[in-house]
Amino acid sequence: MSFSEPLPLKSGAVLPAYSLAYETYGTLNAERSNAVLVCHALNASHHVAGLDEQGHAGWWDNLVGPGKPLDTERFFVIGVNNPGSCFGSTGPMHLNGASGRPWGADFPVVTVEDWVDAQARLVQRLGIDQLAAVLGGSLGGMQALAWTLRHPARVRHCIAVATAPNLSAQNIAFNEVARRAIITDPDFHGGHFYEHGVLPRRGLRVARMIGHITYLSDDAMEAKFGRELRAAELGYSTQEIEFQIESYLRHQGDKFSEYFDANTYLLITRALDYFDPAREHGGDLARACAVAREHQFLLVSFTTDWRFAPARSREIVKALVDNRIDVSYAEIAAPHGHDAFLLDDERYHRVMRAYFEKVAGPAPGRPKPDAPPRGADAAGVLGVQDV
Amino acid sequence: MSFSEPLPLKSGAVLPAYSLAYETYGTLNAERSNAVLVCHALNASHHVAGLDEQGHAGWWDNLVGPGKPLDTERFFVIGVNNPGSCFGSTGPMHLNGASGRPWGADFPVVTVEDWVDAQARLVQRLGIDQLAAVLGGSLGGMQALAWTLRHPARVRHCIAVATAPNLSAQNIAFNEVARRAIITDPDFHGGHFYEHGVLPRRGLRVARMIGHITYLSDDAMEAKFGRELRAAELGYSTQEIEFQIESYLRHQGDKFSEYFDANTYLLITRALDYFDPAREHGGDLARACAVAREHQFLLVSFTTDWRFAPARSREIVKALVDNRIDVSYAEIAAPHGHDAFLLDDERYHRVMRAYFEKVAGPAPGRPKPDAPPRGADAAGVLGVQDV
Repeated sequence: MSFSEPLPLKSGAVLPAYSLAYETYGTLNAERSNAVLVCHALNASHHVAGLDEQGHAGWWDNLVGPGKPLDTERFFVIGVNNPGSCFGSTGPMHLNGASGRPWGADFPVVTVEDWVDAQARLVQRLGIDQLAAVLGGSLGGMQALAWTLRHPARVRHCIAVATAPNLSAQNIAFNEVARRAIITDPDFHGGHFYEHGVLPRRGLRVARMIGHITYLSDDAMEAKFGRELRAAELGYSTQEIEFQIESYLRHQGDKFSEYFDANTYLLITRALDYFDPAREHGGDLARACAVAREHQFLLVSFTTDWRFAPARSREIVKALVDNRIDVSYAEIAAPHGHDAFLLDDERYHRVMRAYFEKVAGPAPGRPKPDAPPRGADAAGVLGVQDV
Repeated sequence: MSFSEPLPLKSGAVLPAYSLAYETYGTLNAERSNAVLVCHALNASHHVAGLDEQGHAGWWDNLVGPGKPLDTERFFVIGVNNPGSCFGSTGPMHLNGASGRPWGADFPVVTVEDWVDAQARLVQRLGIDQLAAVLGGSLGGMQALAWTLRHPARVRHCIAVATAPNLSAQNIAFNEVARRAIITDPDFHGGHFYEHGVLPRRGLRVARMIGHITYLSDDAMEAKFGRELRAAELGYSTQEIEFQIESYLRHQGDKFSEYFDANTYLLITRALDYFDPAREHGGDLARACAVAREHQFLLVSFTTDWRFAPARSREIVKALVDNRIDVSYAEIAAPHGHDAFLLDDERYHRVMRAYFEKVAGPAPGRPKPDAPPRGADAAGVLGVQDV
């Protein structure tokens, strides 16, 4: 869908006329009250569910579809690709109208808030005044949280999975190494590689390998690969593959470098780095969340996620509870690390299904200012590791 | 010191005539019984203590010296640079006699066991039949352990700090990404960059940045850098430094790339990958350790070390206790992550000092085969976080 009105960005720059790729699943009801927006993370798109023309399943197809936890027979689900990404919406590989060349590294720096603003315009254009829910995992969870802070009147429920209120120094550090690998690849050409007919594949490979390590738990890697050799005997080589984990990582890096855009990688990791809603409130996340007082939240984390550990989700839960905001929280014992949010874990999906039952139900009354925080009672907070 | 007799390597290859750079501190006593060998990890050398000609302090100067926990007024301490390294001993940047060109990537793959064999020759040449102790941290701890398994009659005490009985899949994964960054740097030239007058600095920078993240704890990084900005305001750039952690990491990478050899990086990380004494014993570490029955051990780990977590040291302790071998174990509550082994932590150094008192004392009698494991009684095992 094309938008001719420029999008003002947090940086002060402006994204001129742009288009957003999106998909929808299910049917918008007569009241236009059953729409759920799904926000994507680094390496995903608007293709959330079902099969596309090439027969590829959506990235969250195990969660979204007819009869699934986010049931498209009840909900009208919207998947949208964010500007700056490389899966159909306006991005660095597209022409910059001002220069007549691909944007490349000149594509404006976009933030989580900018994406949410772009998504809000799409939702408006689809004739939806208020979303039943916004859902996302990881960076998608940050977008879901940002919706409640930036467009509070336009969303009722926020479902944020495996996310954090901002990146830690270690998170930023991993992003920065990945970016340096890309930027220092001679084929990057300062971000204008399109015009040179090359791709900074070496940098993208290394970036993806680093990322992949942080998506998996130490234990999951150990269980899946351990010290298993590729051949029967050691080959004693520093450059050839000896261990299966090396083979796996190289394969992940190779695959990724074939389809992902290097400038998009920089933009999206930067959006992650920048996200920090507390920053404009003196570092006080509870103050930042005060505007979301009429919303209901589900936060989900996974015990072995060391990228966005449960403690980071609990920071958000605490900020919401401090505001007496209705929040449910589930900490799922899952072995897969950060990747768990994309996997078909039975207890996780049971929590999601139960919460979407709540989303489908009648809208609750506004909480009384003096009532005890709903999030703190047994019904509101799902037990830790007890779901 | 030069060695004209070729060194047979675990791979089946041979290192022809080679030389080892070493330093000694203190005085060998008349009985030649007070020698302690210190083994280095990835980025260190034979310069363990005191000041070198350029005025640089040794890498373990806070631990080793007159009156220090490893007291050079009592012990004769030997620091040696391993073959394959880039600080003076024969390495990839030296001439390969067979080709008349620098070894480069043709330098034979060396293992922890090969290093220990080379060290044993040096120790012999210094007129020492039996070391009072071998000491090392991280990869150095692996060498200390390998001494007891490979040359059991030639060492009495093993002091292994912040180490592991082998690398986990995640450890190997980080090494592999670092290696790929180096190998795919166009300036690597298949490991023969010396002849091209270039250095694969980009790859080395990324490798060091990755390594550095794994040396620090998440908490230490958060405490030191957090989300602190470099400038007063955000600059909204994907390529410029925004956060202090980025500035720190880039600086670490730049510095390292000025002096460290790329082929050495590959060789040393591979030696780490390969170390696995249990492998030749069907994966049974206790069986591998049975040969060390007459030794005494100190194992030290640090609570926030996620590279070689305390659980990895405990695997070694268990294997020793299973053999009724005398082992002391200290798990130090320290915030600094893996780097803690190089730092001047009071409780850590108190443990080291106490243990070297024991090393200086009279040699204990051989344990009776039916006696309870000495490592399991209160005197033998230093309390966890209670030292």
